[in-house]
Amino acid sequence: MERIESPKNAKIKAWKKLHTKRGREKSGLFFIEGPHLIEEALKGNIPFVELIVREGEELPREWKAVEVKPIEVTAKVMKELCETETPQGFAAVCELPDNINIPLESGQFLFIDRIQDPGNLGTIIRTAHAVGITGIVFAEGTVDPYNSKVIRATQGSLFHIPIQKMDLHEAVSLCQENQVPVFGTSFEGSTYSAIEPQNDFVLVVGNEGQGVEETLLQETDQNLYIPLYGDAESLNVSVACGILLYHLKLI
Amino acid sequence: MERIESPKNAKIKAWKKLHTKRGREKSGLFFIEGPHLIEEALKGNIPFVELIVREGEELPREWKAVEVKPIEVTAKVMKELCETETPQGFAAVCELPDNINIPLESGQFLFIDRIQDPGNLGTIIRTAHAVGITGIVFAEGTVDPYNSKVIRATQGSLFHIPIQKMDLHEAVSLCQENQVPVFGTSFEGSTYSAIEPQNDFVLVVGNEGQGVEETLLQETDQNLYIPLYGDAESLNVSVACGILLYHLKLI
Repeated sequence: MERIESPKNAKIKAWKKLHTKRGREKSGLFFIEGPHLIEEALKGNIPFVELIVREGEELPREWKAVEVKPIEVTAKVMKELCETETPQGFAAVCELPDNINIPLESGQFLFIDRIQDPGNLGTIIRTAHAVGITGIVFAEGTVDPYNSKVIRATQGSLFHIPIQKMDLHEAVSLCQENQVPVFGTSFEGSTYSAIEPQNDFVLVVGNEGQGVEETLLQETDQNLYIPLYGDAESLNVSVACGILLYHLKLI
Repeated sequence: MERIESPKNAKIKAWKKLHTKRGREKSGLFFIEGPHLIEEALKGNIPFVELIVREGEELPREWKAVEVKPIEVTAKVMKELCETETPQGFAAVCELPDNINIPLESGQFLFIDRIQDPGNLGTIIRTAHAVGITGIVFAEGTVDPYNSKVIRATQGSLFHIPIQKMDLHEAVSLCQENQVPVFGTSFEGSTYSAIEPQNDFVLVVGNEGQGVEETLLQETDQNLYIPLYGDAESLNVSVACGILLYHLKLI
């Protein structure tokens, strides 16, 4: 097995670049840490480029499906390579998926307008997967879904749900042409609980500070509001997204 | 105005200890950063012990209610003192509230069983405030609500909702004596949407990995489950908590 002992090795340097958006875009690759995410990426048929194993760790049998030769690294190199404080013994480099076109004809969609916090975006993707959303469309200005913190917060859900970057005005208009009702989220919207669950829908959630872009809110079919009590100012966007998705879904 | 220029000043050293649970418990004080949390603490009538201002910042007029003399510190000292990477110019030291006894006779309560992640606990407290929960009871083993990361994630909601540490078995039994129905959360529970909204209720949420303690789940009136689709394994606990609280609440 190939073995890397120096944190200055060219491969290590190249992999560390995958912690930045620019590095991912230039190489077409992304980096994942820990056995759980590796297993989820395998289940999601994500193409593997490298499988990195800390010395002393044994490769789980089920990972035979990974068609790349594992590379062994020292504990020191693994620590240098990983963003988590206590690396879990395994990491991998995978190919970024090709751009896809989610058919916005019928189904249940989530549109994301410039969410900034990686934890929030990851949690939202995890929730969208759990509620069985057909696909996620995100606007320019949203944190990169292949950011390591986002991937960790998705707990692997990122590998199981179609996700596409697209202008949201265009996406809203496409859905409306197909009679898919589009619900924005706004403090000036209608109380969400008055809306019946829907077979087809789009939910639009927005930036932590600014919410959904004003011009986009004017193009939606209806905007929804979650009542706040006790002088509370707002809900965390990933919590609000969960409440609305589970309300809109027919359960 | 008193001015501190050295990060080695005894007050700075003492305040930095408030970043640890032990430091807070020994002193009976806690530390908050940024103008928003200071305003929320003022609104919540939290007693202030120190108000710390970075040189060059002007104290907002509305803060006249703070009855302590502000202390000026240099930018370097402020950075040393604060946990956030870009301190916002103001910080404060406040008194930990006295232990309270939330009357568990009627109302809408949230019980928290060993949540570990500060962001999750803070987000849950924020949601509980927004949904108008009467009080929060948390078990031994839950991350300290006065941890700075928790406070930041609550966005100040911590100062507006009664919160008490207590044995949850005892709390469940008290509620049941008062005919307040207790709902646990469990993968083996009933689908939550089959439950009608309630005037009085307790919701119990649990540890990120292990959920609610098994013996506690046996003492509840009913346990609730949020359906998961698309082979998803679980929801983030703060999202699940939001979905259930807003469902149980009469809106």
